[in-house]
Amino acid sequence: MKNILSMSQLTNNEVYDLMETAIDFKAGKESDIGLDKFAINLFFENSTRTKSSFQVAEMKLGMKEIMFDASTSSVTKGESLYDTVKTVESIGASVAVIRHPQDKYYEKLINDNMKIHIINGGDGTGQHPSQSLLDLMTIYEHFGHFEGLKVGIIGDLSHSRVAHSNAEILTRLGADVSFGGLDSWYTDEFKPIGSHMSVDELCQEMDVVMLLRVQHERLSAEENEEFSKEDYFNKYGLDMRRVNMMKSDAMIMHPAPINRGVEIASDVVECNKSYIFQQMQNGVFVRMAMIEAVLQGDNVDNKINKKRQSALR
Amino acid sequence: MKNILSMSQLTNNEVYDLMETAIDFKAGKESDIGLDKFAINLFFENSTRTKSSFQVAEMKLGMKEIMFDASTSSVTKGESLYDTVKTVESIGASVAVIRHPQDKYYEKLINDNMKIHIINGGDGTGQHPSQSLLDLMTIYEHFGHFEGLKVGIIGDLSHSRVAHSNAEILTRLGADVSFGGLDSWYTDEFKPIGSHMSVDELCQEMDVVMLLRVQHERLSAEENEEFSKEDYFNKYGLDMRRVNMMKSDAMIMHPAPINRGVEIASDVVECNKSYIFQQMQNGVFVRMAMIEAVLQGDNVDNKINKKRQSALR
Amino acid sequence: MKNILSMSQLTNNEVYDLMETAIDFKAGKESDIGLDKFAINLFFENSTRTKSSFQVAEMKLGMKEIMFDASTSSVTKGESLYDTVKTVESIGASVAVIRHPQDKYYEKLINDNMKIHIINGGDGTGQHPSQSLLDLMTIYEHFGHFEGLKVGIIGDLSHSRVAHSNAEILTRLGADVSFGGLDSWYTDEFKPIGSHMSVDELCQEMDVVMLLRVQHERLSAEENEEFSKEDYFNKYGLDMRRVNMMKSDAMIMHPAPINRGVEIASDVVECNKSYIFQQMQNGVFVRMAMIEAVLQGDNVDNKINKKRQSALR
Repeated sequence: MKNILSMSQLTNNEVYDLMETAIDFKAGKESDIGLDKFAINLFFENSTRTKSSFQVAEMKLGMKEIMFDASTSSVTKGESLYDTVKTVESIGASVAVIRHPQDKYYEKLINDNMKIHIINGGDGTGQHPSQSLLDLMTIYEHFGHFEGLKVGIIGDLSHSRVAHSNAEILTRLGADVSFGGLDSWYTDEFKPIGSHMSVDELCQEMDVVMLLRVQHERLSAEENEEFSKEDYFNKYGLDMRRVNMMKSDAMIMHPAPINRGVEIASDVVECNKSYIFQQMQNGVFVRMAMIEAVLQGDNVDNKINKKRQSALR
Repeated sequence: MKNILSMSQLTNNEVYDLMETAIDFKAGKESDIGLDKFAINLFFENSTRTKSSFQVAEMKLGMKEIMFDASTSSVTKGESLYDTVKTVESIGASVAVIRHPQDKYYEKLINDNMKIHIINGGDGTGQHPSQSLLDLMTIYEHFGHFEGLKVGIIGDLSHSRVAHSNAEILTRLGADVSFGGLDSWYTDEFKPIGSHMSVDELCQEMDVVMLLRVQHERLSAEENEEFSKEDYFNKYGLDMRRVNMMKSDAMIMHPAPINRGVEIASDVVECNKSYIFQQMQNGVFVRMAMIEAVLQGDNVDNKINKKRQSALR
Repeated sequence: MKNILSMSQLTNNEVYDLMETAIDFKAGKESDIGLDKFAINLFFENSTRTKSSFQVAEMKLGMKEIMFDASTSSVTKGESLYDTVKTVESIGASVAVIRHPQDKYYEKLINDNMKIHIINGGDGTGQHPSQSLLDLMTIYEHFGHFEGLKVGIIGDLSHSRVAHSNAEILTRLGADVSFGGLDSWYTDEFKPIGSHMSVDELCQEMDVVMLLRVQHERLSAEENEEFSKEDYFNKYGLDMRRVNMMKSDAMIMHPAPINRGVEIASDVVECNKSYIFQQMQNGVFVRMAMIEAVLQGDNVDNKINKKRQSALR
């Protein structure tokens, strides 16, 4: 595949392939597919995890990184995203990982003149395919399948990049998805996918409890004012009392950064049911698989060209 | 040469050598002259293209980059540029590429105690030798010579780092330079070099139409207020009507970032006469040639030292 | 050792070992102990020297760097330092060098779950072990011992990260430490260590004159207002008149960044008694020794594991 822009673009087979490649990388598989190639991480929103994780993935595949800092780039001189991407392509980047506040920013970038591979590192409140894939990989590693798994997603569904795409892909792979959190966050788009339940019920019934971060920076001033951390924690937060209700092999997941004492109690973060830091670890391997997948096409083309060339001799 | 600070420092022969080395690099020439050496890019003004392009050039020559961010450096504690450069030299950098808002900042840095190689990445409204060299390379690649070529430079001549030095070096290499744009931008320093013409005339007569970016950030508040994008575009902008007046093998060039709809119409940017993204591509190879040129002296010294040492044994 | 957090943690033997390893690195010793490993430099305060120096040290040991910029990281979303460090550990970093404004920030990070090696790059007004070690190395390189050496520390003792820890470790290694500068800076904690003298006396008697930077950014608004650069320079600054009072083999040291014309005259900075830029150069080798020291444990563990594994076959 040339680009990875959204989960809906990927077939079930492609999702399984990416997860299995990621599991192979975790088990020690090596690849130098990126040798002598350059990657750039164009992040127009703050990030530690996603950006660093892509950096490590790129370097593990042999790539070198062209540094980019939106705040000191020519974007400050009014350069468009399209021209910035064409520029880094011209300078020699093979892969651009992009995080941008605008939904589907990538639609403007995809045309026949654009040769660089684009991996979506998160668009607005849209998609975040590398996060979805690492969530899937972490579940798949633990349970070995998705069919019939009960997954509860608790939190600020409407502002979350991963809530909707995770719900969709999990359903597509055979899981049974439910939701928790404020009623007002359970908007119409989630109703056809699964029902809304109390956090106590979810803890008792789910195989996977997937928490979302309360994104104070995405709430309106009014919402932030009304919002009480204590209230939220009491009604929807995951504390040890609720963890103890969970099935013995159930998983706790969270995309992080974590708000300790808001959506999750501090002692739950590193408890034995928590896979939060494993998710981060898996993130590197999933991103290696994604980069390998987009670069593989190039190498096939190169091999074909070489074959043609040797046939011509 | 030890440093590359300005175009006027370079002889015609040195310019041709740098261009030809750059063309060799583009054709696949490899060099590990930078292996186990460190470069640092000290940019005190925003940049995407120049900084990234130097980074890629450094890495392609085997160098490693010491990261520098002016906004979190000791410059914020009042450290002078001289002390910053001596510091990075002490830490082990072999090459410092510097962009600084002050004209001829480099004069303070050049003394016998300074061993690090300095490449000027742009000084104030002064020189920008790597941009001039990539412009020259792109023309030379296309036409194979400069003698008798008609080159029109259109735009904000007085605020442009490259206008004056490009005009000078192109004249020195035998080209015939003219200018376009606002009368007030055609200041006295340009009058001895070439005449001022309308954009329509320039499009009809020139072999190379070299646009400059309207640098809103360098205009005064008053100038910015009076400035109308629509007016500028109508009078001086390059649209397809004007492109169609151009000779069949004429070139459109622009140092970017581009103001689409101000100095250039959006559909002209990637038209078949436009060499804008090729300029960026060539920038990497020109910068490889520049870095190789400054490092070459060291290796000669090292070889001599090694010979001396073995002679002493 | 697993982490290097403070000078007081290190035995005299460990200090000598680190210095001697650093001297070996300076003499050309190579090590690939960091090959295929990742380092991250988590700097929450501005720095050129320390951060760049650690970067170069990491790269010389074969490590790759995960980039981190506090201002665009998830710390801006309220993530705790503990969670940030656990994150970079999960992503694959073996070593985290941390500079943080809070004294002893590292106490919260050290537990059995934390596997990443932590090197303190400076905590609040607390410790700065890599600076202390490079100061020690520079003295040791010159004099070959510490016993009986007279060291005068002049400047803003109370706001300095290194004043207290240098005074302590130098005393521990047998040197005789005195102090100079404003009376109000000679606080109770320094009185048991050494006496307070005029700068003229110190210049006449000391083997090492160690200047501290006047840290305007750490002075209160009131202190800054009362502070006159000219006054300070006349009373406590090192000018050529005072340098000429010094013993023939005495050393001038300064951790930099330098305030030329405040604590030191411009012409003293690069005079033949000044070791200021050598300190910076030595900083890289000391940091290589520190990183090697923390990584060495891992490799021993790996070797033991490999032995165990082969014993099991």
